Amino acid sequence: MYIDRPGIYTDHYELTMAQGYFKSGKHKIGATFDYFFRKNPFQNGYVIFCGLNDLLDTLEQFQFQEQDLIWLKSRGFRPEFLEELARFRFEGTIYSAREGEVVFPMEPVIRVDGSLLEAQIIETLLLNLINFQSLIATKAARIRSVARNKKLVDFGLRRSQGLGGIHASRAAIIGGFDATSNLYAANRYGIPSAGTMAHSWIQSFDSELEAFRTYAREFPDSCTLLIDTYDTLGSGLPNAITVAREMESRGDQLQAVRIDSGDLAYFSRQIRSSLDRKGLEYVQIAASNQLDEVVIASLISQDSPIDLFGVGTRLVTGQGSAALGGVYKVSHIGNRDTFKRSNNEEKSSLPGRKEISRYITPEGQFAADAIKLAGEHTVERIYHPFITHKESDLRSCHPEPLLVLAMKDGKRTLPTQQLHQISTYREQRLEKLDSTHKRLENPHIYRVGISRTLLETRDRLMQRMNPNNEKTESRS
Amino acid sequence: MYIDRPGIYTDHYELTMAQGYFKSGKHKIGATFDYFFRKNPFQNGYVIFCGLNDLLDTLEQFQFQEQDLIWLKSRGFRPEFLEELARFRFEGTIYSAREGEVVFPMEPVIRVDGSLLEAQIIETLLLNLINFQSLIATKAARIRSVARNKKLVDFGLRRSQGLGGIHASRAAIIGGFDATSNLYAANRYGIPSAGTMAHSWIQSFDSELEAFRTYAREFPDSCTLLIDTYDTLGSGLPNAITVAREMESRGDQLQAVRIDSGDLAYFSRQIRSSLDRKGLEYVQIAASNQLDEVVIASLISQDSPIDLFGVGTRLVTGQGSAALGGVYKVSHIGNRDTFKRSNNEEKSSLPGRKEISRYITPEGQFAADAIKLAGEHTVERIYHPFITHKESDLRSCHPEPLLVLAMKDGKRTLPTQQLHQISTYREQRLEKLDSTHKRLENPHIYRVGISRTLLETRDRLMQRMNPNNEKTESRS
Repeated sequence: MYIDRPGIYTDHYELTMAQGYFKSGKHKIGATFDYFFRKNPFQNGYVIFCGLNDLLDTLEQFQFQEQDLIWLKSRGFRPEFLEELARFRFEGTIYSAREGEVVFPMEPVIRVDGSLLEAQIIETLLLNLINFQSLIATKAARIRSVARNKKLVDFGLRRSQGLGGIHASRAAIIGGFDATSNLYAANRYGIPSAGTMAHSWIQSFDSELEAFRTYAREFPDSCTLLIDTYDTLGSGLPNAITVAREMESRGDQLQAVRIDSGDLAYFSRQIRSSLDRKGLEYVQIAASNQLDEVVIASLISQDSPIDLFGVGTRLVTGQGSAALGGVYKVSHIGNRDTFKRSNNEEKSSLPGRKEISRYITPEGQFAADAIKLAGEHTVERIYHPFITHKESDLRSCHPEPLLVLAMKDGKRTLPTQQLHQISTYREQRLEKLDSTHKRLENPHIYRVGISRTLLETRDRLMQRMNPNNEKTESRS
Repeated sequence: MYIDRPGIYTDHYELTMAQGYFKSGKHKIGATFDYFFRKNPFQNGYVIFCGLNDLLDTLEQFQFQEQDLIWLKSRGFRPEFLEELARFRFEGTIYSAREGEVVFPMEPVIRVDGSLLEAQIIETLLLNLINFQSLIATKAARIRSVARNKKLVDFGLRRSQGLGGIHASRAAIIGGFDATSNLYAANRYGIPSAGTMAHSWIQSFDSELEAFRTYAREFPDSCTLLIDTYDTLGSGLPNAITVAREMESRGDQLQAVRIDSGDLAYFSRQIRSSLDRKGLEYVQIAASNQLDEVVIASLISQDSPIDLFGVGTRLVTGQGSAALGGVYKVSHIGNRDTFKRSNNEEKSSLPGRKEISRYITPEGQFAADAIKLAGEHTVERIYHPFITHKESDLRSCHPEPLLVLAMKDGKRTLPTQQLHQISTYREQRLEKLDSTHKRLENPHIYRVGISRTLLETRDRLMQRMNPNNEKTESRS
C-alpha cells in the first residue's frame, strides 16, 4: 500500500501555511527542520529508528495529482498557488540516522534542509511514517530482547489499527521478528510468512484426527497442528502424536504443535514431556494468545519449552504506548537560527543546523551522544540540554557521526536495504549499548548532551527573544 | 487508500486452510461465520459499529491479481488451487448491523453465509476493517458525549498508527466529530477539513504581529491565530486583538484564537474575558494538546469558555484500548451447527445461523437484545449466555430486527451513505440508550441474552461433544 496521493496525505494547515508562504514571497527561503522525540515509549531506554525507507521512496515520487489540485481548488485554495503545487517536486536534502539505529530523546535524528515551502509541506507525512514504525520497531526489540533465540512471528494484522498493520509488520522485522502472518507485508517487503490453521479448520471436519490427517497430507513439509480446539492434553496432543507417527511412516516429519489458550507454561511442559517420551523430540511447540515482552519473559524465566511465539495485538498496536510523540520543528530560516521556546523546558527545541556525534569507548561501547552545530569541531564536553550544570567529559572516547546523507536535492543517496540487513544492523548496534540501558523497566538513562557552542547559541537567542522584536539570530 | 490487493491483505493461514478445503473437496460446502466481540473497549457500555462500508466495497471488487498468484506460487501454493483463486469472486451473503449502530458484546453483528472457502478467506480483512473503525468510532462517541455541542476536530494524522489514520478520521466523524485536519480522508470520505497554522508559521516571520497580519490578509474568511508561540497572554493575545481590530476595519472578522499549551482552563478564561472586554465576543477559542474525553469533561465541568477542541493522538489510536478484540467464528458448516467451546466460558462462541432482535420499551427506549436462531419465532424471554439462571421477560417490549441484508450473493444491497447520515443515525440510536449505559466509567451493563432454543441447541452440542466423534448437530 503505497501512499497513492502523498500531496494530500497531510494536515490541512500544511497547505494553508504553504499558500501563505507563497503569497508572501517566502516560499523559496531556505529552512531547516528537525525530527526528534522527547520521550522513549514503553518506559524503554532507547528507540529503534524506523520508517526512513518509506519516507525516502514517497518523497522521491512526491507530486500533486490533477485530481488533488481540482479538489483543493474546491476547498478554497488559490489558483496561482495551485499552479505552484502542480510544479512542485521535493528537492530538499535529508540527513538522517540509518534505519535500525539506536536513538534517544532530543536527538535531531532527521534533518531536512530545503525551501521553507518544501520542508514544511512534508511535515505530516514524515511524522506519520517515522513515529509509527519507530514505535513498533522499538516494541519488537523489547520482545526480541526477552525471547533470546526463540522464533518470533507477527500475528497482528487482524487487530492492527487498520492499514497500519502493513507498516507494523515491516517494523516488527526490523525490531527483531523472524516472520509474519501478513501476506501483504510479506509480499511488499520480502518477509518470510507463516501460518497453518485456525480452529475453524478443525471444526469443519467430523473429527479432530481427520482434520489433522488431512492437513498433514496436504502440507507434509510445513505442518503445524493447532491442538487446543477441544481438549489440549486429552485429545489434541494424542491426535497430533498419532499423525506424527503416520507422517514418519511416510518419511515426513511433523513440524510443530501450537497452543492458543490455557496456561502456556503448564501446557508447554506437559506437551514437551509427552512428545519426548514418544521419541518426537524434533516436534516443536508454538504458542500464542495475548503475548508481549512481559508474558514471554515470564515464560522464559520458567524454562517453558516453547520454540516459537506468535505475537499479535500487543506488538502491532504498540501496547503500552499508543504513539511515539515525535515532532518536527524549524531550527533555521533564511540566515537565522530559531527555536521554539516553552515554559515547560522539555518542550523547547534546539536552534540551528545540527548534527550528532556518537562517542565510542575504547572497548567499542556507546558512551554518549553529542548534539552540535553542523560543521562544529569535535566536541570534548557535553552539557545536559536543560540542566546545564550537568556536564560530561568525552575525551576518553572517539566520536562517530550518527547522521548520514540520505537524500540530496530530492534524489535518494542511501540505497534501499533488505529488512534482514536492517535487522542485523539493529542487532549490532544494540550490542554496543550497555545492558543497563536495555532493562525493560527503569533503564539507566543514556547520556545525550549538547555542545557548548549550541548551548550558547540557544542562550543568546533566548535572551533576545521578545515576541514583538527579532527573535532569531543572524549567522553569517 | 483502497486495499489494492485484497486477496493477499490477509493472514497466511487463511490461504493454507483454503487450499486444504479445496484439495479435500470441502470448499463449496455452505458455511456461516459470525463477527462478534467479547468485551467493550475503554470500559465503555457499548460499541459504535463502524467499517461496514469499506468492507462491502472491498468484497465487491475482491479478486486475486495475477501478480498475487505468481507470488503465491513462489511461496509453495499449488497450481490447481491458484487456478481456483484466479476465478474467485466473493459471492456470499451478509447480514449486518448498520454502521453507526449501538452494539454490545457477544452479539453476532455481522453474519457471513457463503461457501466454506469464501467465508473463511475474508476473515482477516473483515476483522482488520471492523475492529479498528469500531474502536475509534466508540472513542469518538465517548468524546462527543462529554463535549456536548462544542465543535470537535480530529488532529490525529501525524500520530496515527501509520496508514491507520485514514480510517481513524472516517470513524471519528461517525462517532460524532465535526471535521478533520486529514486532507486525504476529507477528500476520500467527503469530510469537512480544517487547519490554519503551526508555530513554524509564526517563527518564519520577524515578529508574531507580522505573522498574524500576513495570515489575516491571506485568509480573511477563516482566520484562526495560534497565540502561544512566545507568551500567550503577554504577546499572542494582544497581537491577535490588534489584528482583529484591523480586520474589522476591512470588514472582516477574526474567527478564532487557538492555544496548544499551558493550563487550558485558566488561559481560556483569561482570553475570553480579554476578548469580551474589547468587544470581540464573536472571536472563538480553540484548544488542543493531549485532549481526550477525561480532559474535555474536566474543562467543561469548569465552564471553560472553549468553543472548539482539536483532538489528536488519544482519539486516533484509541488511547486506553489499543484494539477491539473482535473475532470471526464458524457457527454452521454443511447442515450442522458448530461452535468453539472453551474452558473459559466467555471465550466460547454460539452455534447456528443467528439473528438479533432489539426490544424497545413502550417509551421507545432500548430495553434488551435477544440473540436467537434465524427464523425462530418472537422470543419472550432471554437467558444470560453463560449464567443461564439469569433470565428476563421481554413481553412488555416489542422487537425490531437489528441485522439487515447488506450483501446478497456478492452484490451489495445496502446503499452507501454519507458520513453525516451515519453520524446522525448513531446520535438517534444513542438517544434511545438509557444514560446509565453511557457513563464513561462503570456503566450499567445492557442486557443481551439468548433464546431458549439457542440455549438448548448449544447445550445439546456441548453434551455430544467428544473430540474424536461427531461434534456437530445435523439440522434439517
